Amino acid sequence: MAQPLAFYFDFISPYGYFASLAIDAMAARNGRTVDWRPMLLGVSVLKVMGLKPLLDTPLKGDYVRRDVLRQARRHGIRLGRDLNSPIGNPLPAARAFCWVKRHHPELQAAMAHALFHAIWAEGRELSTPQVLADIALPAGLAPQALAEAAAGDEAARLLRDAVADSIEVGIFGSPTIVIDGEPFWGFDRLADAEAWLRSGGW
Amino acid sequence: MAQPLAFYFDFISPYGYFASLAIDAMAARNGRTVDWRPMLLGVSVLKVMGLKPLLDTPLKGDYVRRDVLRQARRHGIRLGRDLNSPIGNPLPAARAFCWVKRHHPELQAAMAHALFHAIWAEGRELSTPQVLADIALPAGLAPQALAEAAAGDEAARLLRDAVADSIEVGIFGSPTIVIDGEPFWGFDRLADAEAWLRSGGW
Repeated sequence: MAQPLAFYFDFISPYGYFASLAIDAMAARNGRTVDWRPMLLGVSVLKVMGLKPLLDTPLKGDYVRRDVLRQARRHGIRLGRDLNSPIGNPLPAARAFCWVKRHHPELQAAMAHALFHAIWAEGRELSTPQVLADIALPAGLAPQALAEAAAGDEAARLLRDAVADSIEVGIFGSPTIVIDGEPFWGFDRLADAEAWLRSGGW
Repeated sequence: MAQPLAFYFDFISPYGYFASLAIDAMAARNGRTVDWRPMLLGVSVLKVMGLKPLLDTPLKGDYVRRDVLRQARRHGIRLGRDLNSPIGNPLPAARAFCWVKRHHPELQAAMAHALFHAIWAEGRELSTPQVLADIALPAGLAPQALAEAAAGDEAARLLRDAVADSIEVGIFGSPTIVIDGEPFWGFDRLADAEAWLRSGGW
């Protein structure tokens, strides 16, 4: 049985959001499943790489804001956030995701989509665990239990482990798709990644 | 008459090299010409953006080395450099290019290709003006005169002006293609840029 595609993402990443909308279909077209793996740009980019956040980088920040809007228009993706306002604390969403992936692994894709949608399509702030109870969650999850789990130690530990794994694998950007050990970084590399999937590499 | 495509590049950039091999044909397919515009990543990335050189950035450097080799294989591009060895001083090549563009504008594309080829396909070090006399130059250029011009004040001034222009326009990466004011950054955005060219934007 073919390995799942490892899809690394940060909920604060607009390009991660764009790729999240395409990855299930890409995997299905190629007889694969998706293993959704959260990472934190705040750790990889800021701490390990010693760089600044993308949108705060001179020149590049302006380009990225323009490009994100342009990509959303091109692909007909709903974008409900002002890209000039900060995105807030990424931890509650990422911790909630990790908890769901552990306890309801069959809901991992639905949970990732729910969180990306709330943040990027609806423009909601998910900066505290409690607000997670207010978003549209996948059927089978109890809102209040989820909010409590997101505030708990287990979710924090699961996310720490996921982030450590992402750094160990060498992941530094969102999205990154790893196909049988081969990494492809960036929403603009989805076609490359799919060509690799189809051909078995080159 | 349609505006030329503004093609911003740094000779030290492998992705700039890859794009340089495709840009003439892309422009011609769409009834455009190319205005070759050197920039310096050492100014935009290091000084203005406050970032590190790509290949020296933890995690990302390893990925980029792998990706450059992978892209070269995919597109059948000859790569004669060890990506682990430093690329040396980018100024002589960039200054020589600026001087040629000013005094022999009809040779700008041929000169850019000659320099990219020497550095990336042949793996030569162009770290001093004198070595420019030893590479395969476009017909019509006298090797020794070119080497002297590359060491002169005019070439240095032309490059300073070109770099200042690139920063003013907001260029931060190589390659960047600007189509009627719309910037596309990255070798992996050539298809995007061409779609924009064909459709007039979206």
